[in-house]
Amino acid sequence: MKIARILHEGEIKCAIKENDGYFLIESGDCFDIKRVSHTKITGDIKLLAPVVPSKIIALGANYRDHAKELNLSLNPVPLIFFKPPTSVIGHDEYIVLPPCSQKVDYEAELAVIIGKDCKNISEEEAESVILGFTCANDVTERVFQKMDGQWARAKGFDTFCPLGPYIQTDLDYGNVELKAILNGKTVQRGNTLDMIYGVKQIVSFASQVMTLKKGDAILTGTPEGIGQIKNGDTIEIEIQGIGKLRNFVKQG
Amino acid sequence: MKIARILHEGEIKCAIKENDGYFLIESGDCFDIKRVSHTKITGDIKLLAPVVPSKIIALGANYRDHAKELNLSLNPVPLIFFKPPTSVIGHDEYIVLPPCSQKVDYEAELAVIIGKDCKNISEEEAESVILGFTCANDVTERVFQKMDGQWARAKGFDTFCPLGPYIQTDLDYGNVELKAILNGKTVQRGNTLDMIYGVKQIVSFASQVMTLKKGDAILTGTPEGIGQIKNGDTIEIEIQGIGKLRNFVKQG
Repeated sequence: MKIARILHEGEIKCAIKENDGYFLIESGDCFDIKRVSHTKITGDIKLLAPVVPSKIIALGANYRDHAKELNLSLNPVPLIFFKPPTSVIGHDEYIVLPPCSQKVDYEAELAVIIGKDCKNISEEEAESVILGFTCANDVTERVFQKMDGQWARAKGFDTFCPLGPYIQTDLDYGNVELKAILNGKTVQRGNTLDMIYGVKQIVSFASQVMTLKKGDAILTGTPEGIGQIKNGDTIEIEIQGIGKLRNFVKQG
Repeated sequence: MKIARILHEGEIKCAIKENDGYFLIESGDCFDIKRVSHTKITGDIKLLAPVVPSKIIALGANYRDHAKELNLSLNPVPLIFFKPPTSVIGHDEYIVLPPCSQKVDYEAELAVIIGKDCKNISEEEAESVILGFTCANDVTERVFQKMDGQWARAKGFDTFCPLGPYIQTDLDYGNVELKAILNGKTVQRGNTLDMIYGVKQIVSFASQVMTLKKGDAILTGTPEGIGQIKNGDTIEIEIQGIGKLRNFVKQG
């Protein structure tokens, strides 16, 4: 099932995406669907980022080949960092290159969306706290990443966390292909099979550190093949079984 | 003026703290005080963290002497990192040492509380977006800080961001003494005069990176004199003109 957050007739609503359109969640919300309309939504719809996370946890160096391309050492435990909620944008929105930026890169990632508040979850319990998965672009200013050492600024600019287009609740997340497509050309390709720490390990580990809240997003790292985006580009993150998250790039 | 967030008769309320007690903000909220009661609140009051930040921005290596004690190099711009909202606790609450932790340290800091949503603020405009100031303890697991390189885990555990006791709206923030008091003994002492980047510079810089939201907290760094806290300790952060933020320490 694909869950979308949409703007329709000036209101923010949750809906189920089927092949032939969107069906309103009439009762409950995306975390607890009680009743879905049988009739398709008509009129203009704007897709929004599928969640409003209270925090975004992200993984560094979680694919061996990418760690190698950036000369990152492998951590004995998952290496986590944060992106701020203000960095989130949705499908078809603009990634804005900050005036001060020098080299901004795309990074295709699978994002886990947490379905319930939880703490100290075991790997066995991890699936029970996951609502679903979406595509993420962990946009990064590469020069600041190296200069600062801490990645908060490089990865924390407004618009640097595109999420979407939907939350897919049924996904063979341990074996899906993810890719980045720049101006129509596939420039990054990987498979979650090659993650160092898998989804269950990551969710469990993060929950030992901090309480995970309903709607929080965990970005699970990027494979080899990162590269620059420039003013005028179109960058898409596609994950098999979820869909394609498209964003445009403009100079700020 | 000192603004407090309190639990009173089972409800969360905002109040003004005077020497002789608390006076309810009857209309408006802490960001926009419209009317304050003339009669003192009676009955039991529990102080809460004075804000619920959507994000917590923190500064690394912002006092020369502290950068030296940790062998941190000085960044050509303010070095920012994030603590997650789930790390916030209030006055008199427990800092919980995670079972996996080895060495947890206190760090006394002045926190800026943002009063309105804003972006791209100049240093001249910075004061107009500040609601006030509070005491913060940037609690840090020192072993994980070094192991991970990224500080998110080391500084992101639940209970690792005590804030309080009040928001002081009138403070000579460029020249106030801050100290940490461990079990009644002053163990860390500094003055905001010695900050490398001052409050206005920090607010302006952070707002060039990301939209600051009403209630966001910016921790401005710690001076020399950090040290360990252990099960059973009482740790207080005192800032001249604001008050004393007290927390107890227990083993998780």
